[in-house]
Amino acid sequence: MAERADLFAASLAVNYSDIEAAALRLKQQAHRTPVLSSRTVNQRTGAQVFFKAENFQRTGSFKFRGAYNALAQLPTEQKQRGVITYSSGNHAQALALAGQLLAVPITVVMPQDAPAVKQAATRGYGAEVVLYDRAKVVREELGTSLAQTCGLTLIPPYDHPDVVAGQGTTAKELFEAVGPLDLLLVCCGGGGLLSGCAIAAKSLAPACQVIGVEPELADDATRSFHSKQLQTVHNPNTIADGARTPCLGKVTFPLVLHYVDDLVTVSEGGIVRSLRLLWERLKIVVEPTGALAAAALLEAVVQAPNQRVGVILSGGNVDLSQMGQLFGGEI
Amino acid sequence: MAERADLFAASLAVNYSDIEAAALRLKQQAHRTPVLSSRTVNQRTGAQVFFKAENFQRTGSFKFRGAYNALAQLPTEQKQRGVITYSSGNHAQALALAGQLLAVPITVVMPQDAPAVKQAATRGYGAEVVLYDRAKVVREELGTSLAQTCGLTLIPPYDHPDVVAGQGTTAKELFEAVGPLDLLLVCCGGGGLLSGCAIAAKSLAPACQVIGVEPELADDATRSFHSKQLQTVHNPNTIADGARTPCLGKVTFPLVLHYVDDLVTVSEGGIVRSLRLLWERLKIVVEPTGALAAAALLEAVVQAPNQRVGVILSGGNVDLSQMGQLFGGEI
Repeated sequence: MAERADLFAASLAVNYSDIEAAALRLKQQAHRTPVLSSRTVNQRTGAQVFFKAENFQRTGSFKFRGAYNALAQLPTEQKQRGVITYSSGNHAQALALAGQLLAVPITVVMPQDAPAVKQAATRGYGAEVVLYDRAKVVREELGTSLAQTCGLTLIPPYDHPDVVAGQGTTAKELFEAVGPLDLLLVCCGGGGLLSGCAIAAKSLAPACQVIGVEPELADDATRSFHSKQLQTVHNPNTIADGARTPCLGKVTFPLVLHYVDDLVTVSEGGIVRSLRLLWERLKIVVEPTGALAAAALLEAVVQAPNQRVGVILSGGNVDLSQMGQLFGGEI
Repeated sequence: MAERADLFAASLAVNYSDIEAAALRLKQQAHRTPVLSSRTVNQRTGAQVFFKAENFQRTGSFKFRGAYNALAQLPTEQKQRGVITYSSGNHAQALALAGQLLAVPITVVMPQDAPAVKQAATRGYGAEVVLYDRAKVVREELGTSLAQTCGLTLIPPYDHPDVVAGQGTTAKELFEAVGPLDLLLVCCGGGGLLSGCAIAAKSLAPACQVIGVEPELADDATRSFHSKQLQTVHNPNTIADGARTPCLGKVTFPLVLHYVDDLVTVSEGGIVRSLRLLWERLKIVVEPTGALAAAALLEAVVQAPNQRVGVILSGGNVDLSQMGQLFGGEI
């Protein structure tokens, strides 16, 4: 683990040239996702809004960018031994596909109660899924232990420089597509997407304000940002499941402090209303976490009249049965 | 009504030059909707499938094309007097927006029990909505009566040459985007989209087979096509509400007979399964009628191994509360 310790020695582990290098690696592999706009949203917000639609990314979220970028850079020997991660969400599927493309055996540690559809999707990309009892086991410890025992390399969901650099290609593409922006809104779970996008923004459009968005119920990064001390949250009951991470990481926290201008939170009701608007008006399937950044603008937590605003829609992986319950009642 | 009688005198009221003219009229007004593809769909069907995503069209369906094309060609005097239609669905919103853009007063006759969200959307584009009691009144008669009494021009939902020509621009754009196809699948309600697209297909790619797709529960056009006699259906209980029309029209039936190669039907379960796949895998919101053409391929009613297949996704206007109930249970 000496390598990991070294990585964290530098307080800012990623810079824009890492994102440029990631973009080259991803060029033939990741989708250059479309940028969408909506008259309704522009009228309602008074801004000119550009949605970067990562719900159309391979495996349904931006996570493929970071997973592939990290996996592709491993030495051959580590690739042959295999890679492990802990995730019940989008990173699992993303790493599984990256492993399939790069012929790297992937093991994913998931809680026993992870949705069957997510287990199946991860196995569908050829990964091995190891289930654990959430009440008895800490996933990070199980992952680390399995990695050591089996000689596997751990690629965590967000707290890794190559993962951050990969996620930053999302904002790079957005700026390349639409030019400078006044404001960029990015959802925040562990801070991988947020910090990567902030690095790209400050390099490509230095005047652009970058604001991270969390659920009110999972506001650890917002508190960490304002107090400059790492804060945590425990199993927050937000529908934005990608933002249930306990805290920013050793790699991402310093980057967020350095590159991000502010963090704000949105209510659960605001997330659902925004989700509904994206589905009904833009006709796209976005997952609750994917609607966080949009919610900040649509709920007027952030106001940006007459500004050019980028909004990252981070993913679109939903269980339609659950969504059905969400939308089935009146909101 | 002498003009309408003249229009129907020619058995084939629309040709490809009408579609070319419609495309010019629509150029600055309609979206050139994207063409989507899906590895999952290609793998599952063995075909190379190109989805023309009219759910991203203005007002959420292809209907805007025909409505605008028809309205734009009215003489100034008729525009000033105003236009009326009967529709509780996508044509109402489409004509309402076209009226807003062309400064033509629009009246829409809707049943009292039409969903509030559709009434609101139609009013939102500035149209006047006249409600009637479905049990007591025949909408065509009310529409015609109001048109005569108030001097309004009637633009019906599908049985009008200019409407058909407008809808045909959908297929024109698809061929322009992806080149020749072996097969084109189009949903069929009143036959406006189907006949328009078939005319375009036979002109731009003469070898392309064109197949219309209906719900099993609303198979009037399929029976009409095979018997060559106009058949009807009464209030069919299909979730594909855009295909609940009683029969093909005087304009569309001859066109369908002349230009279309076959019509097939899909089950309600097949529609829901296809809808679910489009939402979950393509991450797009499509309405049940919009999934009909895809269902024919995905349910293997039509098989096209190694063929290049165009599929029109006709619209994306859904009531999420209803969809929630649909997807809320296991399918």
